[in-house]
Amino acid sequence: MVVKVYGPAYGSPKRVLVCLFEKEIEFEAVDIDLFKGEHKQPDFLKLQPFGEVPLVQDGDYTLYESRAIIRYYAEKYKNQGTDLLGKTVEERGLVEQWLEVEAHSFHPAIYNLVIQVLFAPLKGAPSDQKVIEESDEKLKKVLDIYEERLSKTKYLAGDFFSLADLSHLAFGHYLVNQTGRGNLVRERKHVSAWWDDISSRPSWKKVLEQYKYPV
Amino acid sequence: MVVKVYGPAYGSPKRVLVCLFEKEIEFEAVDIDLFKGEHKQPDFLKLQPFGEVPLVQDGDYTLYESRAIIRYYAEKYKNQGTDLLGKTVEERGLVEQWLEVEAHSFHPAIYNLVIQVLFAPLKGAPSDQKVIEESDEKLKKVLDIYEERLSKTKYLAGDFFSLADLSHLAFGHYLVNQTGRGNLVRERKHVSAWWDDISSRPSWKKVLEQYKYPV
Repeated sequence: MVVKVYGPAYGSPKRVLVCLFEKEIEFEAVDIDLFKGEHKQPDFLKLQPFGEVPLVQDGDYTLYESRAIIRYYAEKYKNQGTDLLGKTVEERGLVEQWLEVEAHSFHPAIYNLVIQVLFAPLKGAPSDQKVIEESDEKLKKVLDIYEERLSKTKYLAGDFFSLADLSHLAFGHYLVNQTGRGNLVRERKHVSAWWDDISSRPSWKKVLEQYKYPV
Repeated sequence: MVVKVYGPAYGSPKRVLVCLFEKEIEFEAVDIDLFKGEHKQPDFLKLQPFGEVPLVQDGDYTLYESRAIIRYYAEKYKNQGTDLLGKTVEERGLVEQWLEVEAHSFHPAIYNLVIQVLFAPLKGAPSDQKVIEESDEKLKKVLDIYEERLSKTKYLAGDFFSLADLSHLAFGHYLVNQTGRGNLVRERKHVSAWWDDISSRPSWKKVLEQYKYPV
């Protein structure tokens, strides 16, 4: 049974796609057009009541929330493809810690920027300058902490690539390439080297080649 | 080596305390006064660069982010105390999904209410009525989805108590008891029964008895 991933064009689903490539898991991508509101249609809401992507169907098993899905596949196929959880329970603890930092500190700031800088103009809506300024300030503080951390370890959770790094790719791409904020990464030596390392992985290159961003 | 938990008075650290009681892990609570800014002092920032609680010290091992800490102890002591991760990798996937729902849908709404309804008046600051209205609307939608889910399974991830339920206790307590919004729970039959069930667990009663909320 091939895994079906809904919404491959968008940021959060790309977290799942790059994970499936790393774990060498075969999948089929199912397009969902958020601009047409396809995620708010009754058939989709039956599977994902919050009306959000990604959603994964794996035989009879349905799962949503991108960071839950990547944990599931990283654990289910622990010994296939790249190990993304660390070797010990202590290493996994640090993977979880930095996954949470990504979710609660990095992501909200870059997500707000994507909405205000990229999506608001598309809809003809004005960008909220206050939100943009606050998000830029927040990102600088977060990336200063990353710089300190990455001066000591090669990756966020330690000297091994993990879900914690992988989870930054989808919106890190927006940060560096699409919102005109590459300088926030380039001004920080260790963050810059880390970004070059993780964004040049074959898994991520495949995602970018095969599943274009909508903006 | 006894586990040290920093910041037991506050909401997020209580996620960790109730987990440690469920897992029968001995710990020592270390007070941190956020109102005096103790979480922004250099010694604390060395351990937790974001200046947030909780923080756990377990011998030489330091971990932060409450939902990372509870995953760590649930996994490390899988066979001690209450099993909080489900029995199979598929059950754990659903635990992860609902933990993410708690973090990204339930928590931001109730957190905003706590800040606006409880903490703003304490600081003599005006409450933001727009944020309060939006958060109430968001919570109603989220709890409608919980109601549907809990009409089919006893707990969020299935018919077993897990981290997904436990993670709701700390701010669910604010929702029901301290922000005047108990009706949002009581108007939903299955959510109400679920809340009574999880909030009457001995572990949670011990947290409430031993570690008072600041407000």
